[in-house]
Amino acid sequence: MNKSEIQQAQKQTAASLAACGIRLTPSELDQIEIADFGLGELELQGLELITYVNTDRYCAKELVLFPRQTCPEHLHPAVGEDPGKMETFRCRSGKVYLYVEGAAASTLQAHIPSGSEAYYTVFHEVELNPGEQYTIQPGTKHWFQAGDEGAIVSEFSSTSRDEYDIFTDPRIVRVPAVLEDE
Amino acid sequence: MNKSEIQQAQKQTAASLAACGIRLTPSELDQIEIADFGLGELELQGLELITYVNTDRYCAKELVLFPRQTCPEHLHPAVGEDPGKMETFRCRSGKVYLYVEGAAASTLQAHIPSGSEAYYTVFHEVELNPGEQYTIQPGTKHWFQAGDEGAIVSEFSSTSRDEYDIFTDPRIVRVPAVLEDE
Repeated sequence: MNKSEIQQAQKQTAASLAACGIRLTPSELDQIEIADFGLGELELQGLELITYVNTDRYCAKELVLFPRQTCPEHLHPAVGEDPGKMETFRCRSGKVYLYVEGAAASTLQAHIPSGSEAYYTVFHEVELNPGEQYTIQPGTKHWFQAGDEGAIVSEFSSTSRDEYDIFTDPRIVRVPAVLEDE
Repeated sequence: MNKSEIQQAQKQTAASLAACGIRLTPSELDQIEIADFGLGELELQGLELITYVNTDRYCAKELVLFPRQTCPEHLHPAVGEDPGKMETFRCRSGKVYLYVEGAAASTLQAHIPSGSEAYYTVFHEVELNPGEQYTIQPGTKHWFQAGDEGAIVSEFSSTSRDEYDIFTDPRIVRVPAVLEDE
């Protein structure tokens, strides 16, 4: 992504948060992370987020999903003495379809991103509406997609170590987007 | 507090959260905790809260303070192998005056609760407005008061073990309020 595309996505993210009544400081607004996972199709597979705090004990983030945007399937492995990230997703606005390991839904409410079907393998469906939440156990494969209106999700978790995340899609590189010159 | 007083405080808390765009499930609405710390003066010294999640790794709560309501001075001690609760307060709406150990403010913006002056001993002032946050280290004495409009604060933390909290005021008993018959 070039600088202009990233800035546009940051602007859209900030507007979504503001519409939900979630206030960020000017410094946080500049630090909104735009994650396209190296796939170059942000609107289809991507995630926007702001990390409020990430200590060696806990972490809290706000996740923003554009309409029907999907965060690709991944898991959080054990790292050293850490048994792996445990995370609670709480839907603040919009709707989220979350998929985890377990009995598969007969019909999915999410649309699997076209061209990436091979990299979605868990289909136990959890629908989250505003005020609803779900806790994902460490080492559990999961992915999620916003409904037609997009979604905002508060993530409460143990320490976040994104660089160790294991994605099902081998093309994915999970590193924070770096601003490039156009 | 009797049942009617608790239900009234729960209703007021729910209204504050709703006005801030924070959605709770019906079950959560019933579980709003009204903490008067056994002092019987909720409007002066008290706290309203909902615990979203509290695992052996992390915790997340929403704290609600009525106008000028004060959460009394306390600290979170080490418990077994846990070095003590570390917590991040993020102001969502209103204004919060937080006091921690350190250089005392020359003039306090908070009003120390009348009749309890002896139990407020730390006066390093941190003012939090919407979008601003502060992390309190384990074992650090702290207390906080809302401004004239009240406040909503998201608390992100390590595991919460309220029953071990140490309050400066020896009259305080920190247990969740139990519904009594009127």
